[in-house]
Amino acid sequence: MDDIEIPESHPRYESLLTRHRIEAGVEKGITSQQGLIAQGRGEAYDYLLGEETIDTADEAARAAAAHLLLADHAVLSVNGNAAALVPGELVELAEATGADVEVNLFNRTEERMEAIAEHLREHGAEDVLGLEADGRIPGLDHERAKVDADGIGDADVVLVPLEDGDRAEALAAMGKTELVIDLNPLSRSAQTATVPIVDNIIRAVPTITAHARELQDASRDELEGITDSFDREAALAAAEDAIRGGRLD
Amino acid sequence: MDDIEIPESHPRYESLLTRHRIEAGVEKGITSQQGLIAQGRGEAYDYLLGEETIDTADEAARAAAAHLLLADHAVLSVNGNAAALVPGELVELAEATGADVEVNLFNRTEERMEAIAEHLREHGAEDVLGLEADGRIPGLDHERAKVDADGIGDADVVLVPLEDGDRAEALAAMGKTELVIDLNPLSRSAQTATVPIVDNIIRAVPTITAHARELQDASRDELEGITDSFDREAALAAAEDAIRGGRLD
Repeated sequence: MDDIEIPESHPRYESLLTRHRIEAGVEKGITSQQGLIAQGRGEAYDYLLGEETIDTADEAARAAAAHLLLADHAVLSVNGNAAALVPGELVELAEATGADVEVNLFNRTEERMEAIAEHLREHGAEDVLGLEADGRIPGLDHERAKVDADGIGDADVVLVPLEDGDRAEALAAMGKTELVIDLNPLSRSAQTATVPIVDNIIRAVPTITAHARELQDASRDELEGITDSFDREAALAAAEDAIRGGRLD
Repeated sequence: MDDIEIPESHPRYESLLTRHRIEAGVEKGITSQQGLIAQGRGEAYDYLLGEETIDTADEAARAAAAHLLLADHAVLSVNGNAAALVPGELVELAEATGADVEVNLFNRTEERMEAIAEHLREHGAEDVLGLEADGRIPGLDHERAKVDADGIGDADVVLVPLEDGDRAEALAAMGKTELVIDLNPLSRSAQTATVPIVDNIIRAVPTITAHARELQDASRDELEGITDSFDREAALAAAEDAIRGGRLD
């Protein structure tokens, strides 16, 4: 396991766990240089946010859970940092919602694809998509356009944590319902998302799973009530307010 | 040279140059994993700041230049990211102010010390301190306490770009005049500094050098007028306001 032996009650537990998993990700060839820099950007935004899940992020996580449960075919898109930070948590979310898991990298190399797929398998994933790469997202460069035809290519709902803006826009242009986890509320990914979850992925993924489990017996009407009433503009504005008003020290 | 062939007028010039130098730093063993994450945190704060040198940062750079010129013995403390990002610029600042250059790492290994010293020499540094490590900063762990006795140990004024909070506090406790470059105005380093320069190191170092050159013939009275009138609390507050009010997109 990628866990460290410190109590969850430790005030810096989340931060130490994150650091530990990122370092392990580098050792395994999962986390790239760009991934480390992106991690730092996330840390700064999370710091400003107060390192907590704000109410609107929890509502967004609940709406995301409802979308995943309502989907004909949901896929969790996994990049290097997501795989390093929440491998087991993503597998649990996939199990709770019946979603597929697909590796999808900004800097795609076969070596990193394999390392990430193997890391997810070690954390309990049974089928890991993304290695076929027999589908394409229109409007992107060759390597970045690659997806599995029977994975993201076929999905109606995609969870894209920590996605780059170009691909988030291209997926939205395909008409997919896009659930984005991003700590910057005004990033193109967050702005493009059907459901932007402005939260640290380490908190957000377990939060979505908890909502999905609670909603597992909910009726279609109830789930649609949740997705319909989610107000993305209000959630983005609240996140921006929290960051602007958050602590800097 | 570590420069890239894009015109300085390119809208993303600074960002591309930074990225290029950081990547080269990793290749050379200068930039650590922690350095990459720290770079990302800096990017987020700089983004919020509007990626520009605000007026109070320019005033702080001028006060820093005056302190360096007034010093009996000024030392520029250089860590991995500083060496990767502004090696030639630090050498120019040292030349403009008569300061020494000393390598000082949070994660000190002989290999990284040597790689950084060599990198600075390739950029024109003649004497690079820090390798003797025959002095100690009181109140810090063994490895992190190491300095050169005739370098930082002896200095009355120290420029510490991108320093960690513990060491910034320990240096201040030794009674040294501390000039800090840090993009987070409420970091302990910035809060501890005699002169906090809340700016991207890539802009700040050349700005200090420009002020030092302009002030090279200034009288002691004139220089003391500049250091005395610098208002660190106002500068920190202005930087925080700029970040809170800055653009997020």
